[in-house]
Amino acid sequence: MISKILEKRIKSLYTKKGRLKNNSFIIEGKRSLLTAIHNSVIIKNIVLSKDFIKKNKNVTPYNKYKTSVVDDKCFGQLSQVDSPSGILAEATIPLQSKLNPDFPMVYLDQISDPGNLGTIIRTCDWFGIKQIGISPNSVEFYNPKVVRSSMGSHFNMKYLGTPSSEDLNRFNLIGADFNKGKDINDISNPKNWALVMGSEASGISKTMNKKISSYVKIERFGKGESLNIGVAMGIVLHRFTN
Amino acid sequence: MISKILEKRIKSLYTKKGRLKNNSFIIEGKRSLLTAIHNSVIIKNIVLSKDFIKKNKNVTPYNKYKTSVVDDKCFGQLSQVDSPSGILAEATIPLQSKLNPDFPMVYLDQISDPGNLGTIIRTCDWFGIKQIGISPNSVEFYNPKVVRSSMGSHFNMKYLGTPSSEDLNRFNLIGADFNKGKDINDISNPKNWALVMGSEASGISKTMNKKISSYVKIERFGKGESLNIGVAMGIVLHRFTN
Repeated sequence: MISKILEKRIKSLYTKKGRLKNNSFIIEGKRSLLTAIHNSVIIKNIVLSKDFIKKNKNVTPYNKYKTSVVDDKCFGQLSQVDSPSGILAEATIPLQSKLNPDFPMVYLDQISDPGNLGTIIRTCDWFGIKQIGISPNSVEFYNPKVVRSSMGSHFNMKYLGTPSSEDLNRFNLIGADFNKGKDINDISNPKNWALVMGSEASGISKTMNKKISSYVKIERFGKGESLNIGVAMGIVLHRFTN
Repeated sequence: MISKILEKRIKSLYTKKGRLKNNSFIIEGKRSLLTAIHNSVIIKNIVLSKDFIKKNKNVTPYNKYKTSVVDDKCFGQLSQVDSPSGILAEATIPLQSKLNPDFPMVYLDQISDPGNLGTIIRTCDWFGIKQIGISPNSVEFYNPKVVRSSMGSHFNMKYLGTPSSEDLNRFNLIGADFNKGKDINDISNPKNWALVMGSEASGISKTMNKKISSYVKIERFGKGESLNIGVAMGIVLHRFTN
């Protein structure tokens, strides 16, 4: 059973307004939730479907939290996933830690697609990048689709936020662009770097371009007009971290 | 106006059965359609919305085709895109050309996500790979979401199909795996290569593994459990083509 109040609150967390009001966000799926718990994210409530309990005999990791069990139809109404996993949680939005220019950062300028942002977080986690900055007016880090598509990597990050101009200036800002700069094969071990990427539709904004000290590009051998932002970032991060 | 027959046929092209029956597929969006026309894809019908005509004064590229103009509401019913572009076409599924082992290939084993396949086609096009093989029981190349998310790159490919065992054996099959093989940084210019990648969920199948001569991997520096298949492929292709 689930109270009407909790049901209403969980549904509200699919909106930015609801997340701000409750200072909470949604984590859906077993793997994401376990990574969140492992990284000391504060869990306020867990909702399990009856089907989930049938299929998962070991539910002890969830026992110390406030847990509600609902039937599968009710769970389907709480979830926004096509094939709901049967487990979701309300968690507190973690406090922002400070940016540390001794470690690398990825900075995203006007990114709007939640799936792309999730893939980017996952890619950063693979290459050991733990600081991601994002410009205002981008998709939010705590959007449920972003959290879901990062597949747990969200909770391995140390900094997810919008850095001040002052903070940005403490990094060696390197822009990725399709048309200008050095081929990434000719770059070796930059220091204090922050990789800046713009949206696929409009690239890096004018304001941001003014701050950037150098550009890198990925040489094209075919006819493709562009690369997906997550793919392009993976190629640059692989080069920068190797 | 659009005839009931054409309306019904276009809607049927969103299903595999309809595509097979009519030997047609859907191209939506101006850029994709222009790339298709440029690459001599046979266009059977074009449907334009009134709003598209208002916004695009130059519609001459479409004049030599059978064209229907419909109101925006009707167009919305023909499209499966959230924000319809106002232009879609019925095109003939191109004849398969032959695989050529003198040029590289990407082979996808049991890929089911149409967005991933579209991104992969786009990435191949960037790096000049023009042959993509796919195993049976994967998502189809002519699925409308695949065509759309390849952003025109679909039509720059020379081979899109399911190769025979004999054809596969003419390539030096290199598997990408997260756990085994050489670091891709230690690979230099393979010959006659076909890069084999499995699905994110289940990896490369047993049958395919038996054919593979060597494996490559992307070194991990962080905690991420996996990379998105399109991102991983981009990193390997960047290495293989440079």
